[in-house]
Amino acid sequence: MRCLLSTFLLFVLFVSACTNQATPTPPTGGLPSDAAAVAAERNLKPDDIYAALKTYMPSGQLDPYIMFASGGQSGQVLVIGVPSMRILKLIGVFTPEPWQGYGFGGSSDATLDGGNMPDGSELNWGDTHHPNLSETNGEYDGQFLFINDKANARLAVIDLRDFETKQLVKNPNAINDHGGAFVTPNTDYVIEGPQYAAPLGWEYAPLDEYNDQYRGLITFWKFDRLKGRVDEAQSFQIELPPYWQDLCDAGKAVSDGWFFCNSFNTELATGGVELGNPPFEAGTTKNDVDYLHILNWKKAADVFNAGKVETINGIAVIRMQTAIDEGLLFFTPEPKSPHGADVTPDGQFIVVGGKLDPHVTIYSFQKIQDAINAGGLETDQYGIPVIPLDKTKEAQVELGLGPLHTVYDDKGYAYTSLFLDSAVARWTLGGAFADKHPEPAWTLVQKLPVQYNIGHIAAAEGDTASPDGQFVVALNKWSIDRFANVGPLLPQNFQLVDISQTGDQMKVLYDMPIGMAEPHYVQIIKADKLKPFEVYPEIGWNPETMSVDPNAITDAQDARVVRNGSTVEIWSAVIRSHYTPERVEINQGDHVIWHFTSLERQRDATHGFALSGYNINLSLEPGETQTIEFDADKSGTFTFYCTEFCSALHLEMVGYFLVKP
Amino acid sequence: MRCLLSTFLLFVLFVSACTNQATPTPPTGGLPSDAAAVAAERNLKPDDIYAALKTYMPSGQLDPYIMFASGGQSGQVLVIGVPSMRILKLIGVFTPEPWQGYGFGGSSDATLDGGNMPDGSELNWGDTHHPNLSETNGEYDGQFLFINDKANARLAVIDLRDFETKQLVKNPNAINDHGGAFVTPNTDYVIEGPQYAAPLGWEYAPLDEYNDQYRGLITFWKFDRLKGRVDEAQSFQIELPPYWQDLCDAGKAVSDGWFFCNSFNTELATGGVELGNPPFEAGTTKNDVDYLHILNWKKAADVFNAGKVETINGIAVIRMQTAIDEGLLFFTPEPKSPHGADVTPDGQFIVVGGKLDPHVTIYSFQKIQDAINAGGLETDQYGIPVIPLDKTKEAQVELGLGPLHTVYDDKGYAYTSLFLDSAVARWTLGGAFADKHPEPAWTLVQKLPVQYNIGHIAAAEGDTASPDGQFVVALNKWSIDRFANVGPLLPQNFQLVDISQTGDQMKVLYDMPIGMAEPHYVQIIKADKLKPFEVYPEIGWNPETMSVDPNAITDAQDARVVRNGSTVEIWSAVIRSHYTPERVEINQGDHVIWHFTSLERQRDATHGFALSGYNINLSLEPGETQTIEFDADKSGTFTFYCTEFCSALHLEMVGYFLVKP
Repeated sequence: MRCLLSTFLLFVLFVSACTNQATPTPPTGGLPSDAAAVAAERNLKPDDIYAALKTYMPSGQLDPYIMFASGGQSGQVLVIGVPSMRILKLIGVFTPEPWQGYGFGGSSDATLDGGNMPDGSELNWGDTHHPNLSETNGEYDGQFLFINDKANARLAVIDLRDFETKQLVKNPNAINDHGGAFVTPNTDYVIEGPQYAAPLGWEYAPLDEYNDQYRGLITFWKFDRLKGRVDEAQSFQIELPPYWQDLCDAGKAVSDGWFFCNSFNTELATGGVELGNPPFEAGTTKNDVDYLHILNWKKAADVFNAGKVETINGIAVIRMQTAIDEGLLFFTPEPKSPHGADVTPDGQFIVVGGKLDPHVTIYSFQKIQDAINAGGLETDQYGIPVIPLDKTKEAQVELGLGPLHTVYDDKGYAYTSLFLDSAVARWTLGGAFADKHPEPAWTLVQKLPVQYNIGHIAAAEGDTASPDGQFVVALNKWSIDRFANVGPLLPQNFQLVDISQTGDQMKVLYDMPIGMAEPHYVQIIKADKLKPFEVYPEIGWNPETMSVDPNAITDAQDARVVRNGSTVEIWSAVIRSHYTPERVEINQGDHVIWHFTSLERQRDATHGFALSGYNINLSLEPGETQTIEFDADKSGTFTFYCTEFCSALHLEMVGYFLVKP
Repeated sequence: MRCLLSTFLLFVLFVSACTNQATPTPPTGGLPSDAAAVAAERNLKPDDIYAALKTYMPSGQLDPYIMFASGGQSGQVLVIGVPSMRILKLIGVFTPEPWQGYGFGGSSDATLDGGNMPDGSELNWGDTHHPNLSETNGEYDGQFLFINDKANARLAVIDLRDFETKQLVKNPNAINDHGGAFVTPNTDYVIEGPQYAAPLGWEYAPLDEYNDQYRGLITFWKFDRLKGRVDEAQSFQIELPPYWQDLCDAGKAVSDGWFFCNSFNTELATGGVELGNPPFEAGTTKNDVDYLHILNWKKAADVFNAGKVETINGIAVIRMQTAIDEGLLFFTPEPKSPHGADVTPDGQFIVVGGKLDPHVTIYSFQKIQDAINAGGLETDQYGIPVIPLDKTKEAQVELGLGPLHTVYDDKGYAYTSLFLDSAVARWTLGGAFADKHPEPAWTLVQKLPVQYNIGHIAAAEGDTASPDGQFVVALNKWSIDRFANVGPLLPQNFQLVDISQTGDQMKVLYDMPIGMAEPHYVQIIKADKLKPFEVYPEIGWNPETMSVDPNAITDAQDARVVRNGSTVEIWSAVIRSHYTPERVEINQGDHVIWHFTSLERQRDATHGFALSGYNINLSLEPGETQTIEFDADKSGTFTFYCTEFCSALHLEMVGYFLVKP
């Protein structure tokens, strides 16, 4: 210790000597004496110092990567800077979010309503699982983000120009999902896989009719990039056996046009522990293998376009028999209760982690094609052709207990999460990747312990055709003792892992608590691929239509109140730091249509509009126009005020809303 | 640069030599070669390295401080570790929060309903401003947290045993607030100040009757610590003139029993820019002074107990004339549009930042008392006695533009946020603090630039009788260019400031984005003062009653479904990784009462219960019992499943809810 401290002093003196010279290079990289004292006082180990310097973001420096994390049962999406692991934004998706003014009176109310049940009943939360960025040629293009709601089988579209949710779509034939959202390499389709089988349209059917009445279902939502919306009329579904299809991945490059999904419960268990049956956790894990689903989505699109579909609850469905007849769907065995199916960056392999099997199984796309072309396949009980494992398997690598998901880097390594081992396994790919790493192909290289029980794992640019090689993030399901005690509901723990070195040199860099639900997956994009608006392009911008709103005003002089019978229409101007008008007086029972336009053009000059007692709150970003509409059913003296501190006179940005009885 | 790199190499060799010796001291404090390379590559400056090492929290080490931040217009509270500035938890308060199962079917629905409007109409968001921790003898005791909703004048009580919101109270006479929550030194009362004046009970009154019909109002909510609830029957209010009372602080030690509130708009402006009047921002800032309100709350409690009150909308109100007659209320001038009123740790001074005046004004409690005792005071237009400024002022210190709030440390310094200067001003206190710092009393010591436009500021243990001296946090209102662009709605920027050294050695350590609304204030408590449950104390714990629920079951064998007419009551057991029962079949139209008990005893073994299509989600922490009640109005095949990844077989934790048409 003394030795080290003297070293610091010597070092610091030397550095000072160096930097005191008239040298054009800036002082950089040294360990100043006060920093040395802090390191000693805090008992920081060399790896801690390395990690601190690797992840610390000096004031004003921007994170090079942006991570989009599902918010789990918060129903939202989190935007996180990497490597600093700082939350930059929470995006309201399936749950109303007052900060964004999402669902509290403005146009987003209609967006949220779009996700209601078919009978109109309200769903105001979701369980977001798998965010997927839009892709062009298999690369994240930074334009859109999609995410599913497992709880109710819904899909959301987020526009990355303003990081706002633009569309929710309720799946008319599925009541829950899991395997979604996944995009095809040019975002032609956003794919929503199923989870727990139910009859199409979740109609009532008793469980003893499970095999005949219950079904799996995969949905291909057609994405209209120009409109930034899913086009339901151009979307279709494929009926599947009532196995519980799980995670999926789109083929790319050589395998473009194909789609791969895991499944479990090929046992067709229906639970009932209370009746003496094995509980689902036992009943669904009896068999040694389940089925990897192999779908030809380009051919399926042709089948849809040829009209070989049935319309069920308003959406086109390719029935199972059609899928068989048209050669759209094949199975191959995969080890017991798999979780992830992850296509390698070149599209050549599909890696499956069988969570109750210590191996990952690697399938060859070429072998799959050869077997399909050879024909003569047996079928499962529903008539789906099954390709034997020995005809599809490229390799198996034993990694440890509970392999779940696999991601890739630029060095020919794969990274698999091991839930039960609580570790990240690094192993080597073969094929075209065999020359990229020093170790032999299909070999375990390192198991890095993580804290604790990792579920998903994600890599920077990891799901693209060209992953980066700096970081992976371990999405740990349990945190236990990692953070200060904040009560019986604990945060999750994201751990940032340094994968920049080859071999067994992976290191945990940072523990990030997620104390606002359980993210299930993330995608990490290079920050410079995102080109969001700094302010809305023009005054009067309507974020729903992404164009100027006909009710925008561009001058406070145009602010006005117009009565038409018992309807009162108001055009308000908003600029630092007052509303025009500041007084609105109406009669109880009037119907109010109230337009707001922010005249601001300066970045970050956001205003809010909170109307006390009426459950209304808007966020008005620079240039934005919003409209609220409500019945003034409560009489009284109400105030409205700005909820974003906008100037030294922000507290004075207020008005009175008087409702005469 | 070359010089530095060689220095690193030399240093690293020396360190390696040191650490390779068989020395009993652990390797600590060094700058390992890989860290040096990172520092050079990332161009980290000495201050960056210092800041990185000061704030980095190695995996598993716990933050020594916990910060409770208001969530602003998210309606929630954030729990943040200091100095790592990591968000540990988001607590649902005024807005439903599905992760905590807050407002999606369980007992918390009733908690949220408690905050509805008196006519029963729903308020499902809030604008949280000022969190206040419960105190014992003027010190945070770690038991409860209180926070206000500015948008609708409400108060929330959060129990820090489980970090859950237990009570919302709607103020029956105010429609908005701001100056709250503030506790008295033993948490006898939680005080909610007003903001924009309105008639009591927000009854309709035209603005030309403003001076007579509109009123300010301060509410003293009696807190029952044993029950952990506000006792509305023992609470009272004091009617005030229709100035816009703002932030407040309770006296302590010598000034215990007194309470101090700022005000603005003593001009009685009523806005109307659209009519050619000055907008509020101009009309409310015409006068050079406003009034500091000085209230004797212990005497007010006596007046309440003596029954000298009027009951208005169900709550006791001390009318303004009574307050005058009983000597409860005094004014003294304060410079133009002040924002913070902050009592020093010894209770001797009240510091007021006049946001349109470059000074802070320091009032002496002793001088105030002397002036009150001397009598002979003139009054304002409402008859409130006004003590001249020269009889109450101890000092004024010129700090710069836009002084807002002031906090304290253990070295006799005060820290004031300067909104317009975008800086933290450190200055010296006098009186009993004069010997604690090297500089003369009442002197500006340093102005530290922050990014940008700081609103509030907070210090570790800062509002107690004994603040700590390591950190203050600057709550900046604008972030502009500090973070990667995430669209036109930007995060706020919390900056952690190192105040450990005396003199002009304050440093910004860390920029923390808050991308989920605008926190207005925080309090920072020593982590070891908090003693939350790790798991609920017994199986069957009801978090609302904080006792065992009569509908708890302690064994899965007691799980059952009982039909009584068209009411179906279900007792479910929940444990890794299945529900008992797994099949529930009922008829459409049945009324369902469903009890869940988690049989888990292991920390972090939380389960969820999501019922697809029915908008229900529970979080069931170890030992918790929850009850949901609903009408099964939709027929079909629905699934329920666990939303917290609980084991390798978590995905198999599912059941079917069959509703027969």
